[in-house]
Amino acid sequence: MSKDNQVEAITSMEEDFSRWYTDVVTKTQLVDYSPVKGFMVIRAYGYALWENIQSVFDKEFKKTGVQNCYFPLLIPESFLNKEKEHVEGFSPEVAWVTEAGGKKLEERLCIRPTSETIICSMYSKWLKSYRDLPFLYNQWCSVVRWEKTTRPFLRTAEFLWQEGHTVHETFEEAQNKTLEILDIYRRVCEDFLAMPVIVGEKSEKERFAGAHATYSIEALMHDGQALQSGTSHNLGDHFTKAFDIKFLGRDNTEQYAYSTSWGVSTRLIGGIIMVHGDNKGLKMPPKIAPIQGVVIPIAQHKEGVIDAAKRLTQALAVDYRVKLDDNDSYTPGWKFNEYEMKGVPVRIEIGPKDIEKGQCVFVRRDTGEKITVALEEAVVKFAEVMEAIQSNMYQSALKMLHEKTGVANNMEEFEKALRENPGFIKAKWCGCRECEDKIKELTGATLRNVPFEQEGVDSEVCVYCGKPAQKIAYFARAY
Amino acid sequence: MSKDNQVEAITSMEEDFSRWYTDVVTKTQLVDYSPVKGFMVIRAYGYALWENIQSVFDKEFKKTGVQNCYFPLLIPESFLNKEKEHVEGFSPEVAWVTEAGGKKLEERLCIRPTSETIICSMYSKWLKSYRDLPFLYNQWCSVVRWEKTTRPFLRTAEFLWQEGHTVHETFEEAQNKTLEILDIYRRVCEDFLAMPVIVGEKSEKERFAGAHATYSIEALMHDGQALQSGTSHNLGDHFTKAFDIKFLGRDNTEQYAYSTSWGVSTRLIGGIIMVHGDNKGLKMPPKIAPIQGVVIPIAQHKEGVIDAAKRLTQALAVDYRVKLDDNDSYTPGWKFNEYEMKGVPVRIEIGPKDIEKGQCVFVRRDTGEKITVALEEAVVKFAEVMEAIQSNMYQSALKMLHEKTGVANNMEEFEKALRENPGFIKAKWCGCRECEDKIKELTGATLRNVPFEQEGVDSEVCVYCGKPAQKIAYFARAY
Repeated sequence: MSKDNQVEAITSMEEDFSRWYTDVVTKTQLVDYSPVKGFMVIRAYGYALWENIQSVFDKEFKKTGVQNCYFPLLIPESFLNKEKEHVEGFSPEVAWVTEAGGKKLEERLCIRPTSETIICSMYSKWLKSYRDLPFLYNQWCSVVRWEKTTRPFLRTAEFLWQEGHTVHETFEEAQNKTLEILDIYRRVCEDFLAMPVIVGEKSEKERFAGAHATYSIEALMHDGQALQSGTSHNLGDHFTKAFDIKFLGRDNTEQYAYSTSWGVSTRLIGGIIMVHGDNKGLKMPPKIAPIQGVVIPIAQHKEGVIDAAKRLTQALAVDYRVKLDDNDSYTPGWKFNEYEMKGVPVRIEIGPKDIEKGQCVFVRRDTGEKITVALEEAVVKFAEVMEAIQSNMYQSALKMLHEKTGVANNMEEFEKALRENPGFIKAKWCGCRECEDKIKELTGATLRNVPFEQEGVDSEVCVYCGKPAQKIAYFARAY
Repeated sequence: MSKDNQVEAITSMEEDFSRWYTDVVTKTQLVDYSPVKGFMVIRAYGYALWENIQSVFDKEFKKTGVQNCYFPLLIPESFLNKEKEHVEGFSPEVAWVTEAGGKKLEERLCIRPTSETIICSMYSKWLKSYRDLPFLYNQWCSVVRWEKTTRPFLRTAEFLWQEGHTVHETFEEAQNKTLEILDIYRRVCEDFLAMPVIVGEKSEKERFAGAHATYSIEALMHDGQALQSGTSHNLGDHFTKAFDIKFLGRDNTEQYAYSTSWGVSTRLIGGIIMVHGDNKGLKMPPKIAPIQGVVIPIAQHKEGVIDAAKRLTQALAVDYRVKLDDNDSYTPGWKFNEYEMKGVPVRIEIGPKDIEKGQCVFVRRDTGEKITVALEEAVVKFAEVMEAIQSNMYQSALKMLHEKTGVANNMEEFEKALRENPGFIKAKWCGCRECEDKIKELTGATLRNVPFEQEGVDSEVCVYCGKPAQKIAYFARAY
């Protein structure tokens, strides 16, 4: 039996969360380390998960009129330099192509860390009149950011993502699009990934390099650390001015357009792992699980067992991603562990006694519950169980998020909360960069966002400086 | 009215085929030139076409057990150097990353021109026992090859493709997989792209760098030039030996595995354009057309017209990619030209007189035929017309291929055929590299492949050297 196929022990979360994570991502074959430092290989099981996530987002984007395109991988250095804050934000972490086709290049080309600059250069060429607007384009691609410390899915030198880039006639329209997309991000995370998120605006410090305003969704992991899971930027006219994106307006005058950009990435897979996983491994939310159910025959050498298992699989596979595992090199017990580790939402057992009684047994990954199901009701019941698991996983994650969210009126409470129950800290903030910096210095917690829902903190002063403060902000240590 | 939105004249094919091609790809907004030399921007209309092509291939691959993965964009120089022929074939045209994260790299990394080397390095790590085999993985990604002369879709410094990489226990299994995929390529081209192809084996000269054998599908364009449209390689044990991909076999001895690789790319879009297009622009095969039908209201300001057009669109859009164009900035006549140019298979006209009679008018892009259709039969009729167009486009393309295929028994006939009716030349070939080289030198025609169907040439001697020859080969000038 090959090493890769053994169900190996996963380090427990409580013992070492970071090792638990590494064990889970590698042993379930979501991902592997590549020979190029900081670059990961997304294996078939991980990529199937990404395809399901992609498919949901892609449909949602398209419903709002967004179309997909593809822009060049390489960006001339001079383009990156056009927006001042943008180049400062990105140039330290880009990879440069300096030689190609056997020659030294006249101008260095960077591998896109994000594509605002190259896309804006095209938009400038395409835009003539207000009648052409809005531009609503997105691309699915890989980007490269030369990170020093890397972790599969969470922070890697290369990752897969989507980047949407829109152009509008007015600032207000750009703002509306920014928030419309942010809401798609929230909705997909909650409804499909079963991952509750805090929705709000980033502080100036954490804003995207070159943006007018950045909004984010922030999820909370089992270890109490936050994960920025998607961002949507209103770029105002910063990029349109830098790239001369102008149009002839309704009043026949030439004017600058307004733009947005927004992205989610394979980082979301890290979120799914750390929000839902447990010491047995992954727990896949049914709606995006690569395998939603696995049929495991018991005593499969006995007459009729394989046949019954096949019929059951076929019936379920009409509407669901259900597979049969009738590999006789492994025992049912080994398979139970394997698919539990891989987070398959439902295991379906069927053996000679079940067949006699015209039944099978569903075992839920989320609760461990065993449910005896009449074979003729299997399809209907499976649909119910899929919904029940999806809903239960969201509720459990929401409960965890609430339990790990504390309120602090001053820094003593802040530090105590972070020490005793690591997670989100809600606190009033005066809005100044200095307080934000000091809080990070003292506690390691960063300002995640200023949530749209401004409720639950009674204090009327900044948690750090004690001056009058209006805004509630979420703080946390973060990935 | 913005310049991009005008229906502009397309240079006629007969006048200048190359300009016709450029006009068609840019004016229909399939693609645009980017500011990075040799790199293209695939615009929304072109990308939608690519998504439809991808989706068909992806389903076919998955039916045969292939799963998608994602491997790193960058490959260490030392990896590229491991397979001798491979490095010779690819190193002149790669792009090198030499600096990243603010530092000079110790080892240059190339942007993948193809991923055999990085993927093999992972396979070597993953493979232990014959029980792990076969490995059946594919990735959809972009690759970079620094070409000197570029043309949108046909030859660009960056293009999108899929690359499949499989590993097998025996040479025979690898060979079977190579041919199984080649047959998928043929089938999808014929059945979905309506593009007939010649299926066969490449000569040693044209073999993929490092392959044991390369097979291709070759299509014929309107100008009589061939387009290599997909290749499938049996890599034998060349890469498995170079990358130490070994396993413990059934007989308990360690042995090298056998591997394959295969790919199709955005080049297929170039094929669709040049096989089906005419002087009015594109003709999209219905099965992969981004827009299968466009409803154009006539006299849309009159009462009831827009409503009727919307109802008709909704009914058709349940099962088809049908859109309504009720933009009142443009006349119906302008729209007719626009969608004709974009190759939309069916235009559906509906005006006050049609509504009175309870009908609409279908206009076929392939034949120009106008068909009056009762509104209650529109959906059924649309399905029929889709099939009829798909079939007619394939038959027309096949007719063209046959008409442009000549037979030559000697070089005089060869040159005459190529001069008078440019296209494929079928001829006997002795199998030697020298004859192949001389034919190219004399005529510019290259050996496209040795077709599986060895019929239609009576001569028993090589078209060049006159020595006895068994094999029939296809020659053509090619993109």
